[in-house]
Amino acid sequence: MSTHKPKYAIGIDYGTNSVRALVVDITDGSEIASVVENYPSGDAGVLLDSKRPLLARQNPADYIDGFYRAVSKAVSQAKKHGFKPELVAGIGIDTTGSTPIPVDRNGTPLGMLPEFKNNLTAQAWLWKDHTSFDEAAVITEKASKNKDQYLAKCGGRYSSEWFWSKIWHCKRENPKVFQAAYSWVELADFIPAFLTGNTNPDTLPRGICAAGHKAMFHEQWGGLPSKTFLRSLDPDLAKLRDRFNPETKTSDQRAGTLTAEIAQKTGLAAGTPVAVGAFDCHFGAVGAGIKPGTLVKILGTSTCDIMIHPLSEPLSDIPGLCGIVPESVMSGMYGLEAGQSAVGDIFNWFVKNLVPKQYTANGDVHANLTKEAEKLRAGESGLLALDWNNGNRTVLVDQLLSGLMVGATLHTTAPEMYRALVEATAFGAFTIIQRFEEYGVQVKEVINCGGIAEKSPFVMQIYADVCNRPMKISRSAQTCALGAAIFGAVAGGAFGDVREAQKKMTGVKPSVYKPNAKAVVIYKKLYKLYRELHDSFGLKGHEANLYGVMKELIKIREGVFIG
Amino acid sequence: MSTHKPKYAIGIDYGTNSVRALVVDITDGSEIASVVENYPSGDAGVLLDSKRPLLARQNPADYIDGFYRAVSKAVSQAKKHGFKPELVAGIGIDTTGSTPIPVDRNGTPLGMLPEFKNNLTAQAWLWKDHTSFDEAAVITEKASKNKDQYLAKCGGRYSSEWFWSKIWHCKRENPKVFQAAYSWVELADFIPAFLTGNTNPDTLPRGICAAGHKAMFHEQWGGLPSKTFLRSLDPDLAKLRDRFNPETKTSDQRAGTLTAEIAQKTGLAAGTPVAVGAFDCHFGAVGAGIKPGTLVKILGTSTCDIMIHPLSEPLSDIPGLCGIVPESVMSGMYGLEAGQSAVGDIFNWFVKNLVPKQYTANGDVHANLTKEAEKLRAGESGLLALDWNNGNRTVLVDQLLSGLMVGATLHTTAPEMYRALVEATAFGAFTIIQRFEEYGVQVKEVINCGGIAEKSPFVMQIYADVCNRPMKISRSAQTCALGAAIFGAVAGGAFGDVREAQKKMTGVKPSVYKPNAKAVVIYKKLYKLYRELHDSFGLKGHEANLYGVMKELIKIREGVFIG
Repeated sequence: MSTHKPKYAIGIDYGTNSVRALVVDITDGSEIASVVENYPSGDAGVLLDSKRPLLARQNPADYIDGFYRAVSKAVSQAKKHGFKPELVAGIGIDTTGSTPIPVDRNGTPLGMLPEFKNNLTAQAWLWKDHTSFDEAAVITEKASKNKDQYLAKCGGRYSSEWFWSKIWHCKRENPKVFQAAYSWVELADFIPAFLTGNTNPDTLPRGICAAGHKAMFHEQWGGLPSKTFLRSLDPDLAKLRDRFNPETKTSDQRAGTLTAEIAQKTGLAAGTPVAVGAFDCHFGAVGAGIKPGTLVKILGTSTCDIMIHPLSEPLSDIPGLCGIVPESVMSGMYGLEAGQSAVGDIFNWFVKNLVPKQYTANGDVHANLTKEAEKLRAGESGLLALDWNNGNRTVLVDQLLSGLMVGATLHTTAPEMYRALVEATAFGAFTIIQRFEEYGVQVKEVINCGGIAEKSPFVMQIYADVCNRPMKISRSAQTCALGAAIFGAVAGGAFGDVREAQKKMTGVKPSVYKPNAKAVVIYKKLYKLYRELHDSFGLKGHEANLYGVMKELIKIREGVFIG
Repeated sequence: MSTHKPKYAIGIDYGTNSVRALVVDITDGSEIASVVENYPSGDAGVLLDSKRPLLARQNPADYIDGFYRAVSKAVSQAKKHGFKPELVAGIGIDTTGSTPIPVDRNGTPLGMLPEFKNNLTAQAWLWKDHTSFDEAAVITEKASKNKDQYLAKCGGRYSSEWFWSKIWHCKRENPKVFQAAYSWVELADFIPAFLTGNTNPDTLPRGICAAGHKAMFHEQWGGLPSKTFLRSLDPDLAKLRDRFNPETKTSDQRAGTLTAEIAQKTGLAAGTPVAVGAFDCHFGAVGAGIKPGTLVKILGTSTCDIMIHPLSEPLSDIPGLCGIVPESVMSGMYGLEAGQSAVGDIFNWFVKNLVPKQYTANGDVHANLTKEAEKLRAGESGLLALDWNNGNRTVLVDQLLSGLMVGATLHTTAPEMYRALVEATAFGAFTIIQRFEEYGVQVKEVINCGGIAEKSPFVMQIYADVCNRPMKISRSAQTCALGAAIFGAVAGGAFGDVREAQKKMTGVKPSVYKPNAKAVVIYKKLYKLYRELHDSFGLKGHEANLYGVMKELIKIREGVFIG
């Protein structure tokens, strides 16, 4: 490591379709260089099977190629602004998750071995792969009967998106791949391991974030779930338990330092500290300036909703949350994670599949639809949708839910539907806010970040109107990568702790979306109907009479024109 | 009238977007000439108000212009095949309905007067105008308490599509127009009145079909509803009661004979008999060869489902039917009418509003979507829809219902949705068949006619699979106009009765759509879910738990791939 006073940090953010490398000036948070590289494989980086809509995998080679391309370019770009590799305090890495990768004894992803190159089962199991719903249901059932309440901290339900569901499903989907895998590594752990040259599954440093939120890891029961429990699922899972580093670290600690080979390939300095990895949304929350009372919403293809709560204050288990994990976001704080399984993905699905030519003219279909959709008043279309095209993560934790739209007439248009889908995601967001508050975690401020928060005043205004709260926007357009840079800087020793780094490096934009009183009134009515659908289709045993839903929608619509 | 033995009949069929003139050889039903003329006004003939999706009106001048254009061309065309005007036995007319037209004391439609030319309220109120839902609800409520059970014969509910609802709503929508109207005439009565030069509202011949099915006319209570009843709605409606010909006729009778002026303008013979008019679907049923035990489905923008039942045999009131009217279809028989508020209209709505470029390439979007949609197996898309974009006519008689689709994922495509909408209309069709049979009217045979039956083997196969019955197709592609020609011929004296004419002039095609056993099994499961949605959203007080719907859809889809 350099003896100069460090001036930069690098954040690497692995998203669903691309990887971003960000070079940040740690003295003021200004972003010196930012490069995005798309994954070349599959459909925008996602390997699909047209016959199995629940399946979503990724080629692990894309991660490594993407790293080299993005970081090399970012370094060249930064050099134009006086950047020097020896002034880098550290590198932080965040990724999607739970995205487990089957690896061999050396930690090489099976999907990178010639014999498994074209095998979908052997690739990385992307967070949004939902093929493992059967396994998730069995894990939920068995865990709920276990003396250690493994799921009390993650909302009472184990998801098909998560670590053990996927590993177990692999065995059913392709036993050969399962047998070939010595162990499984979360993408968030794999990248730091790769960068620091320590990919041995038995010893590679594991982050508390992925382990705690997705793999039922908790100090309370001594780390991973017991062998007895795993054996009750499948003896092969119990065997796997020995093939992980039993300890976890927080991301303000180092995973190691950059290898000479990788440093040479990217133009960075060998020995640069690399922080322990974590999930994109957790780092995004830090990059957005999270503190107790602040809800950070990271709006992308899906959303991640993060809060933190002091370890020193009481906190109940909150049903439906994806996880309540000590120190997963920040030391000294519980990390509380909620989220919506699809937000931008729903809008993109609509744009890709259901938009006629007249709105695709100049290529920016979202902009064209938005232009028409923002002319509509709340309630005017008579439409109401559920935001479940990819299941429901919070508060129902149920991937076997699907999209629904009600209220279409013979005059319903694509912009009306687009707006209804945006509103649906806002109702989903509001449901999460309510759940936090019902369990005593007050939401005093909402900071939004991610592509949608940046680009769509239309979406943000609807969120303000539906939630009846001001919506703030993070100053940085890439809070995840910024958060990663913060952890890189802290792990590298440039700051005493994360809060200190945040004060220097984060902030919100001056303009805030404020709720419109008229729209608030209508959305209160619509939310009641949304809740009616939500509970009827989402809660077992809920006795709803849906007779009034269509009629009330028409009444609301008529009311918009009269009043 | 000519002294030659008649050889031809002319059928005029007024649809929603166009009028057709058909010249038929009455000795074998062969169609000598057939001309369709579109209505020039509005959106494909329909006057709309973008702010009121329930509104649908028509310019009455389009009917008259359309008549001249279509008949003149048909006569010229027919002459090439030896047609002579003096060999025409008679002319029959069918129209959409209930499509009431406000008229002045001379029977001139107000919309044709200069002062009302641009007034939407003064035009013809097209069958699918649903602005009068409030009035329909009040009429239903008051009629249900009346000693004469006016609605027992029309399913227990008065519809916003029907005569009195619309007239009453006119008063609220525009009192000036209401006051200017001396009376109101159904389109089915207006055309024969115009052709025979007898448009005086007090004396023009009225058909039993429109009166019985839409205006609560029944011999049992002495014709139209009592003045006392109408006064209980609105005193002005009671006054109107005196401004109708109190008698009605069946369509095997003459309304009169063609005026010299119209004969001259079209190339027909003055004095040619003109039959009493009726609704398109009733004549369509006759043109398709209806007899007891046969359900005739006329599949167009909406559907009409017609059965007949001997007056001599017992028949219960059937809740949800649009009407059970003695002799409305054929003398000696009850006419039973059911229907779906939108079928082709739903497919067209989808095509117009929600289909991306890749399926619009060669211009035939329906064909492009069909090509992809018919590759799918039943249950494969995981989608389920309700066919209520224009409300539900049978069995719920409720225009305040709307479209619904459930099961969308992030991979759902336009062809999948298109198929789900087709299936939804098939489920709606099956619901009607079940209702007939629950009340003792056995459906021994289904004959389909209309554009969709002609053009879409894809739709017809799904109907066969969903209803688990063979689907036959009428030999004629224009059974409504053919039925009109049959009534023209019978009213003109060429046949002893309608059955005799049918034997000569109607038939079915040799090829029949037979249910596919595999699909039948899946559709039974899907119909159960459809019924769950149908009852939850459509029946007041129904206590449904919809929790299982989305899950069952996924299970069915997975089953398709496994089994």
